[in-house]
Amino acid sequence: MTLFFSDKIDHKHIFLDGDELIHCVKSLRRKSGDLISVIDGKGQLYSCRILSLDKKELKAEIVDTQQFERKSFLQIAIAPTKNPSRIETFVEKATEIGVHSIHFINYQYGERPRIKLDRLKRIAISALKQSKQYHLPHLYELSSLSACFEKNLPVIKCFGDLGPEKPTFSQYIKGESELIVFIGPEGHFHKTELDLFAENQVQAVSLGDTTLRVETAGIVTAAIYSSR
Amino acid sequence: MTLFFSDKIDHKHIFLDGDELIHCVKSLRRKSGDLISVIDGKGQLYSCRILSLDKKELKAEIVDTQQFERKSFLQIAIAPTKNPSRIETFVEKATEIGVHSIHFINYQYGERPRIKLDRLKRIAISALKQSKQYHLPHLYELSSLSACFEKNLPVIKCFGDLGPEKPTFSQYIKGESELIVFIGPEGHFHKTELDLFAENQVQAVSLGDTTLRVETAGIVTAAIYSSR
Repeated sequence: MTLFFSDKIDHKHIFLDGDELIHCVKSLRRKSGDLISVIDGKGQLYSCRILSLDKKELKAEIVDTQQFERKSFLQIAIAPTKNPSRIETFVEKATEIGVHSIHFINYQYGERPRIKLDRLKRIAISALKQSKQYHLPHLYELSSLSACFEKNLPVIKCFGDLGPEKPTFSQYIKGESELIVFIGPEGHFHKTELDLFAENQVQAVSLGDTTLRVETAGIVTAAIYSSR
Repeated sequence: MTLFFSDKIDHKHIFLDGDELIHCVKSLRRKSGDLISVIDGKGQLYSCRILSLDKKELKAEIVDTQQFERKSFLQIAIAPTKNPSRIETFVEKATEIGVHSIHFINYQYGERPRIKLDRLKRIAISALKQSKQYHLPHLYELSSLSACFEKNLPVIKCFGDLGPEKPTFSQYIKGESELIVFIGPEGHFHKTELDLFAENQVQAVSLGDTTLRVETAGIVTAAIYSSR
């Protein structure tokens, strides 16, 4: 079943435009009267019948609606990578595996002080449809670590740290479902950031024996959470 | 500490050439008399002093040797992806996380009947150095599934399958360290392949609730194994 994504939905109709319209009409040659399946990224799956379409927009009537519950309550607060394709790989894989939210943090030793949020959202939407899920991760604008702590974060907080004398992430999260994990940049965390972690009861955890790249640490976090 | 890779090592000397030579001499400007750290991908870390270098080769004298034990005994038998960059991402991430071997399988519904093994090996070597590990995964030539079963495989075998009525991979591997996991192509396994799995006592396991791309399923397998 091919899924389309739309955030233009009223109580009776959905509308597709842009990439979704092209995919539906040009690639898959759907036409008026055809049934299509549309997700809104907020847990709804709509079955719709196409009413009209032109070059700019497709309008469809909602025939049936199913609601799916969110399964992941994992939030990841990660450093954008120097090479943007690496953080894109992370967003794609984390969405496929299933996460609640992704915060992009401008850590002090970070290597890239900007992100292309629209591009990352498109990657997440594509991964969501590919993996047949219904809840799009919330992607937050780039912020400082201290600004992130002003948000309403889960009580259970941890950060990926190197070295063997920490509990492993999988040990630490046993039985927990709502949590946030901070993944630092290659240059690790600044002392002031470690102080902020201490103030906010953020626990150091190990993500394994090897030195992982930033995006790999993020993907491993999502994978371990998904198997807990 | 920057690590270099060499497979040209005798009992007293190591030699660097190609990319490793360029990295050492051009990028990092090492010269005669300097100490460098070299890994052989088989668990040895050599401390060496550069004796001579020219455009083709660097020769260094081994000053000290440390042996590291292998930590991962996970083998993954995976389908090459239609887009080669996706299987490259898998090789990079699996090497970073740590796996014993990667078998490339020409499954019947596979989307790509060839691989560039030399390129994949270079990606693995780079990921190995980046993640400061000592054991390079063994990358096998592309083979059929039946040819793979003629190799000396671990006793514990499983394959990633969809649907909820299987034990999860993390439940299945509790306490086991030597195992092989078969990851099929997007088109899933052919009936004859499922028959081969049955004959060879290969257990169906679930890798999570979502539909993962081939390379993501491979990475998730490595991540869950590493946290067991």
